[in-house]
Amino acid sequence: MPKLDFWYEFASTYTYLSVMRIEDLARDAGIEVRWRPFLLGPFFKAQGWTTSPFKEQVEKGRYMIRDMERICAARGLSFTMPDPFPQLSLYAARLALIGADEGWAGRFSRLVFTEQFAGNIQLEDKTALGTCLSAIGLEADELLTRIETPEIKQRLRRQTDDALALGLFGSPTFVTEDGELFWGDDRLEQSISWSLEKASS
Amino acid sequence: MPKLDFWYEFASTYTYLSVMRIEDLARDAGIEVRWRPFLLGPFFKAQGWTTSPFKEQVEKGRYMIRDMERICAARGLSFTMPDPFPQLSLYAARLALIGADEGWAGRFSRLVFTEQFAGNIQLEDKTALGTCLSAIGLEADELLTRIETPEIKQRLRRQTDDALALGLFGSPTFVTEDGELFWGDDRLEQSISWSLEKASS
Repeated sequence: MPKLDFWYEFASTYTYLSVMRIEDLARDAGIEVRWRPFLLGPFFKAQGWTTSPFKEQVEKGRYMIRDMERICAARGLSFTMPDPFPQLSLYAARLALIGADEGWAGRFSRLVFTEQFAGNIQLEDKTALGTCLSAIGLEADELLTRIETPEIKQRLRRQTDDALALGLFGSPTFVTEDGELFWGDDRLEQSISWSLEKASS
Repeated sequence: MPKLDFWYEFASTYTYLSVMRIEDLARDAGIEVRWRPFLLGPFFKAQGWTTSPFKEQVEKGRYMIRDMERICAARGLSFTMPDPFPQLSLYAARLALIGADEGWAGRFSRLVFTEQFAGNIQLEDKTALGTCLSAIGLEADELLTRIETPEIKQRLRRQTDDALALGLFGSPTFVTEDGELFWGDDRLEQSISWSLEKASS
């Protein structure tokens, strides 16, 4: 079964669109999704930015909100702009890293993104993240303790370094087994088609 | 007949994709395209950039080239990265401004973009632009003289100011009659659907 690496940042608006549909699309295509949470902050810093480009560029930020409103309406998704934006995504990313090992990253990510963009939770709120973990049947306390261990902190740093080494610069990014990068929810279908073509050739 | 404003910068790679297909798509949908050339340079300067964001951000620039290669291959379009990039688009934009008045902006733009991305011409080369004008049956010398008049220079400045006032920040951008902005070739179909829905409601 072809594998598709899904690199994603929890604070990213456009990533919400892909989180909510990638597993269905991939399953229909016979492709395995590998959930790869990482942090965009280090990329922004490397550009000399202090925050998201949607804050750095006012017009682009305004447009992004309208674009998200239109797309979410068409797909039947709630959309409330997080405040503050971007949210602190560190804890959610560390949890998803464990989830990727244990097979629950997809369920957890869909719930956290849904709650974030319904305006129900702040990503920095560990109690709220714990509620999400419990809601999908996991041991919240144990997991929230684990994300404070040096091992998990270090693994997220390494995974973010790996993203940088791959040439990533934004989220969502889909990377095929033969190393093709596809950036943005608009390229999700294309990344799946590419994976299928390579697998059959 | 609904009208769709097509705001475009001649030096933009992704704009090539829309220039080559917008008129066919719009005609099939019963929509009139209004060609609106403008310059992105002033927008970049306002961000504190000295050049295209694809040069400012190395990884994004590298990705853009690969993304264009894949899409152009799928659509049967030639793609050679212009050198230098971005090209000086001032003269082409002034000519297209006249073309928009006189009904030949589409033909002219398709030819200039095709030649640019086949690696055949430099946009700053007025002789090459003149050859494009002649090729579509226009009086090259007279038009190349007109674009040096204060009137045409001033009109392009005003049109670029208008783009800024609309909240544009990139090319291609499609603006519907009710003022919705759609940015990027990926949103061309959506801008057409939006125009049709508004026209029928």
